[in-house]
This record gives sequence, structure tokens and C-alpha cells, in this order.
Amino acid sequence: MRLYNYFRSSASYRVRIALALKGLSYEYVAVHLVKNEQLSESFRAVAPAQLVPALVLDGEGGGEAVLTQTMAIIEYLDETHPEPPLLPKDAIGRARVRAIALDMACEIHPLDNLRVLRYLVKEMGVSEDDKNRWYRHWVETGLEIVERQLAGHAATGRFCHGDSPGLADCVLVPQIHNARRMDCRLDHVPTVMRIFETCMAEPAFATTQPSACPDAT
Amino acid sequence: MRLYNYFRSSASYRVRIALALKGLSYEYVAVHLVKNEQLSESFRAVAPAQLVPALVLDGEGGGEAVLTQTMAIIEYLDETHPEPPLLPKDAIGRARVRAIALDMACEIHPLDNLRVLRYLVKEMGVSEDDKNRWYRHWVETGLEIVERQLAGHAATGRFCHGDSPGLADCVLVPQIHNARRMDCRLDHVPTVMRIFETCMAEPAFATTQPSACPDAT
Repeated sequence: MRLYNYFRSSASYRVRIALALKGLSYEYVAVHLVKNEQLSESFRAVAPAQLVPALVLDGEGGGEAVLTQTMAIIEYLDETHPEPPLLPKDAIGRARVRAIALDMACEIHPLDNLRVLRYLVKEMGVSEDDKNRWYRHWVETGLEIVERQLAGHAATGRFCHGDSPGLADCVLVPQIHNARRMDCRLDHVPTVMRIFETCMAEPAFATTQPSACPDAT
Repeated sequence: MRLYNYFRSSASYRVRIALALKGLSYEYVAVHLVKNEQLSESFRAVAPAQLVPALVLDGEGGGEAVLTQTMAIIEYLDETHPEPPLLPKDAIGRARVRAIALDMACEIHPLDNLRVLRYLVKEMGVSEDDKNRWYRHWVETGLEIVERQLAGHAATGRFCHGDSPGLADCVLVPQIHNARRMDCRLDHVPTVMRIFETCMAEPAFATTQPSACPDAT
């Protein structure tokens, strides 16, 4: 497998964690987002959506399949490599884990990714200060929703759901790395932060973090 | 089951389509987003995330479970009511369908939902014209990515994947309703529009559309 990704992309980090939890090896291909390498013709030939990460599967008989969108990639990895499971066995538990992951993947991250911040500044004339305020607003209010899903819920354990890491943790940890980098307030989400620290003590989360990537600067 | 939703919310519409495809009946509970009813204490007691839609399952023995996040809700419905399936049987096909759905659910819709547009205007001082330009930009560029995933792909059929409607179609159709309402350009996405028209000829999509809802104005 080849993972096209960028050390600082939190979407990429989600997939790196999932691959590490599954114990799967892969070739790391860096796509430098700040240099716009995702818009190159060569990357477009790999991934028509021109978004990182993209996971290229080794095809049987020479064909290759390209997977995009982190939640779809992680679900694929979980279906094809069931151990250890990243989703619980029961349908309601699975819905809970997916919803917590989507609370970040749909309600926070899309508003704060690089192309959106660039559009705010370049096309809408938003100031650097207002851009940062925008960033923090969606992180801080969005994580508050995640906190409400986690705090005091019977299914919350050492991790978002029970006592082993899963899909929701793969999304939570990169979101907190971003939040810290942008100096977001985090003291209002103690359960989120307790789970973050628990995750970071696990090799699958620590060894794949942005600063540990081959393209880290 | 009770579905808390709003006629014009495209996220709500996705779930209404899935419920109709599965032939499931439910109580329709309107939550008026423009009047901010999702922020009321009574709705917060139902759904702590205060986002619509929320699907409340009839509990066994008096307990109730509340599902949120449309992709999680639809996956739950597909797991618990397998016929007709909304995801293909093969893992790569499932990844493809989820990725197409997420190309809209993560890359387009979060940027254009009501709370984000309000924040742009009220907190960032963006003009009405710029707000509309922002809206159309994410729809038009985002749908172009969806078009690239669909056009000429061997797995694309009458619908996004094969010849029966599935998860990706549940997301595509509400996105196009929004795009039309906001006068977005659509002539550059002919495959998307061909599938949209095919879907709208199906009762599950037509009878649940915004204008057919009990709270439509």
C-alpha cells in the first residue's frame, strides 16, 4: 500500500493511526500541501479529487484501487483487517462511534482546513486575526459538542468507546493536535483531553504524529 | 421511531430518503432551524449536540437511543434493515460509495450550512453578495470533484454505484436541491445531474423532498 499524505494534515494523521493500530505497513508518499503539490497533474492522476490522504491498494493482477476520504478508508481497513476492531460489535455502539467521529470530521475540520482558510483570506479579504478567530470558534464550539457526547456516557471508557482505541479516537487525536497548534481553548473539554492523553501514551498514536513523520519540518 | 428534522435541512432530507428506501415509518417532528428551535432546552434534552436530524429509536423496556450525524444514522439503518442494501457487498465498492457521500458531507455541506453562513455575516461582517459567492464556490468546486468520481467510472450506473439507489444518492440529491435554490452553476456536472434526475423519478426521493414535508412553508 502507498499512503499519499502530508505530515501536518490532520486527515492524513487519522489514517496513519488506523494503519498503525492494524499493524499494517505502507509506503509513505509526502504531498506538500503548502506547496500545492496536491494540485499537480501527477497527483491528480493518482487521486482525481486532489485531496490528501489517498490510500493506493496493491492491485491483484496489476490493477490498483485508490481510496479517498478518511472515514471511508478507515472503514475499509476495519472491514478487510478486522483485528483489532475499530468499531464496536453492536449497531447502536457503531452508530455512536461514527457520530462522534463525524462530529469532528464534518462539523469542525472542514471549516478549518487549509483551502478554506486560504479562501477566507484571499477571496473574502478576511484579516489574519479574524481568520484565527474563525478557526478557534469552530474548534472550541465543536469540541464542546464532542465533550457532551463523551462526558458521563456509560459507553465512554479509557477511550471514546470502551477501553480500546477505535475510529473516534483516530479522529479526536489529530483534531487536538491542530487545536493546540492554533492555541485553542481546551479547558472546557476535560473528557476529550483525558482521552487524548490516554491515546498519546499508545505507540500507534505517538509514532505517527506530525512531528514524527518523514516530511516533518 | 421519531425523526427530529427540518424540511429545508439537506442533512435531514438524506435521512428521510434512507427511511423511505427502507420502507420504514416514523413520526415526523419538525425543528425550525431559522427560529433556532434546535437550541431550545427541550431539544437539547433529546439531542445534546443540538444538530438536526436526530433519530430517536423506540427503546425496548422504556429506554430510548438517540442517533445523530446522518452518515452514522444511514449506516445504522442499513445494518439493522439490510433490504434493500444502501451499500454494495464488496469492500472496495463500499469505500467508493462512502467516499462519494463524504465528498459532499465533508467537503461541501459543512461550509454552507445555516450556522456557518450566519457566522460569516454576523461575526465576520461578510456582505450578502460575498456570502452567496462563498456558498456557490464550495458547491460548484465540490460537485466538480464528485463528477470526476462518477463520470466514466465503470461502477457508476443509473445511480452513483450500480443500478439501485444507495448511500451516495441519499447525499447527492439534497445537495442538488440546495444548489438549485442558491442558483449554483450545474452545467459542468452532467453525470451528477443525470443521476439526480433518475433519483427524483423514484418515490423515495420525491415524496420526502423539502416541498413535500409537513413543515414546508
